[in-house]
Amino acid sequence: MPSTPTATPARRPGGRTARIRAQVLAAVRAQLVEHGYDELTVDAVAARAGVHRTTVYRRWRDVGGLLADVLDEAGDDGWRPPDTGSLEGDLAALNQEVFDALTADPPITAALIAASFRSEEAARALRRFWEDRYTRCEPVVARAVQRGEIPPGTDPRALLIAATAPLYHRLVLLRTPPDPDLPVQAARSTARAATAGAFSPEESPSAR
Amino acid sequence: MPSTPTATPARRPGGRTARIRAQVLAAVRAQLVEHGYDELTVDAVAARAGVHRTTVYRRWRDVGGLLADVLDEAGDDGWRPPDTGSLEGDLAALNQEVFDALTADPPITAALIAASFRSEEAARALRRFWEDRYTRCEPVVARAVQRGEIPPGTDPRALLIAATAPLYHRLVLLRTPPDPDLPVQAARSTARAATAGAFSPEESPSAR
Repeated sequence: MPSTPTATPARRPGGRTARIRAQVLAAVRAQLVEHGYDELTVDAVAARAGVHRTTVYRRWRDVGGLLADVLDEAGDDGWRPPDTGSLEGDLAALNQEVFDALTADPPITAALIAASFRSEEAARALRRFWEDRYTRCEPVVARAVQRGEIPPGTDPRALLIAATAPLYHRLVLLRTPPDPDLPVQAARSTARAATAGAFSPEESPSAR
Repeated sequence: MPSTPTATPARRPGGRTARIRAQVLAAVRAQLVEHGYDELTVDAVAARAGVHRTTVYRRWRDVGGLLADVLDEAGDDGWRPPDTGSLEGDLAALNQEVFDALTADPPITAALIAASFRSEEAARALRRFWEDRYTRCEPVVARAVQRGEIPPGTDPRALLIAATAPLYHRLVLLRTPPDPDLPVQAARSTARAATAGAFSPEESPSAR
């Protein structure tokens, strides 16, 4: 979820094929941010990347394929969640990454989210990206359980979505002006909720 | 937030003007759901509504004006949040309305959200709609404070967004398969969090 499609991927060895991919995907991002989805065409991307259009058609087929590869590349970055020593600190750091991505300039994350409403292939790739990010964040919850901060049996996905969803909801759908306190506020209320057992099965006298 | 643009507005007296508005807005909803934003044009709407195109241009100007009026009409419905006698019950009922709207068939709410990424005017109207819905929901929180369920000073907007945001995030952005338990789960964890003071200022020994 730390949506970091903004991040420039580490330069990998790989010669010409890797170099062309990097050029083309950079062109997709730039074209999308500057001109929007409506002017995102294979031809425009090829021209912008300085690559022959048949190369782009052959390898990516269409705009959906290009957007999916931008998202797949963004996810292929070895990202790990921060480890600050407390649940609230970890969630605040995660939320700061989400906040920065959603308010970045150029707004590549926002543009990719908007594009996911136009292209089914982009929507699937975005789903994969987020699913992978949330999975990578699960150690944040496991560490908090180990430290005794939150009850065993806490549902990691429910907790992580509760922490991050208010940012997406406010910034992407409600489109409220970005409040810089939001990452910490959402982290704090989610950590307090988790401590109180809000994401673990309700205790009942007859349990077990 | 109970996003009920699905609801058919109460038939108001008002004669020809009101009748034409109802016909045109019904045509906008049907055209959007059946053919998507790309085929939503003033001419298509006029034809579908059986209304002269100049009437539509004069009154609504363009697609943005039509979408904004669909949302304004949806908000103009006297909706009040449910009063079930408990915070968890109220939030569960609210969340069920959100869930039903986001998973409805025809998917008019989902289509309007998607359209808000295409039309700035639709985005503004959706923001107004939600802002108004969240404001109308504030009595849910005030009643819970009065009953002594949650601390005075609980931030109503933060609580209401925490309750509903996971539904929007999962169903609109993460696009996970709709889990019918989601409304109750998000309501329960938010109510438990609020009871534990997660949405009220942190007590500190020096406070006051």
